[in-house]
Amino acid sequence: MKLLEDRIRQDGKIFPGDVLKVDSFLNHRIDVALLSQIGKEFYKRYQNEGVSLILTVEASGIGVACLAAEAFGCPVLFAKKSKTSNIGDNFWSATAHSYTHGNDNTLIVSKDYLGKGERILILDDFLANGCAATALTEICAQAGTTVVGIGAVIEKTYQKGGDALRQKGFRVESLARIASMSPEAGIKFC
Amino acid sequence: MKLLEDRIRQDGKIFPGDVLKVDSFLNHRIDVALLSQIGKEFYKRYQNEGVSLILTVEASGIGVACLAAEAFGCPVLFAKKSKTSNIGDNFWSATAHSYTHGNDNTLIVSKDYLGKGERILILDDFLANGCAATALTEICAQAGTTVVGIGAVIEKTYQKGGDALRQKGFRVESLARIASMSPEAGIKFC
Repeated sequence: MKLLEDRIRQDGKIFPGDVLKVDSFLNHRIDVALLSQIGKEFYKRYQNEGVSLILTVEASGIGVACLAAEAFGCPVLFAKKSKTSNIGDNFWSATAHSYTHGNDNTLIVSKDYLGKGERILILDDFLANGCAATALTEICAQAGTTVVGIGAVIEKTYQKGGDALRQKGFRVESLARIASMSPEAGIKFC
Repeated sequence: MKLLEDRIRQDGKIFPGDVLKVDSFLNHRIDVALLSQIGKEFYKRYQNEGVSLILTVEASGIGVACLAAEAFGCPVLFAKKSKTSNIGDNFWSATAHSYTHGNDNTLIVSKDYLGKGERILILDDFLANGCAATALTEICAQAGTTVVGIGAVIEKTYQKGGDALRQKGFRVESLARIASMSPEAGIKFC
């Protein structure tokens, strides 16, 4: 998606440790007009999959998911990273390691809102090691739902997550696919 | 907002300890079509305030903020509850107690994205004790921005947060104002 690649080139900042900071438009400050375009692009790619629910993870996936859900005309469900006091014990869960934060998160989804018959599109801001997306597919399997696709705004294709999910048979679509990046050489897209 | 009050009456669940669970449509599963209507209602109320940025808190405020931002044609900035590895030391912060989770959160906003001249609308899903909203107003004051309004989807008017903010001179608008609620008597709106 050229609009997105241009924006990443313009505003993305690369830091040592393989960090691409895009928090000026994607996951701290949110450029809602851009996310609306991104949502329409996901719809274009998955519109024939009968998506009934978009599943994401708090917090940075929520904006992406909500704007895409407008295009799909479906609701969003976001997995929580901690058990809140009022979710009870009625939940599906799976563990995801966060390389950004250096910890494990137990992702939790209430059983009330994820059940058989749903056709799930998993969306998130980043796909790198694929830990969060994999945990969400595990939750979907527990709930007996069908994952019709996995979409990421930005994929670091040189990490293993996206291809591991593709090898499992999931249809993975990323709107900006980074082949390599470094503070010295900048970003190369696929 | 009648559509919202009807939905709360229909799907909201009241639990002991003053808990109103609306996670079937507002803060776990998100009814994006409803949030789009809610966003338009906030726009109706604050359209003449020259809003340049909507400020909220992760995670449950993000959906509300993004759908409202579409109506306003402005970006969203969400405060984070923990210092991520790539935000650096360049941030505004304020502490907010969470009664839902029983802990203190330090809300953090990068100085890069909040500065003088901005006209801020603070939005969140709930307004009860007002701790989160108050912390956001403190962050806005640190940054030298103007808070033109504070909006909540649901206000528990029998708690002190909303009125305390009004007494400080903020324009606070809540779309569903709960006068009282209990598992036995149900919900009464103002």
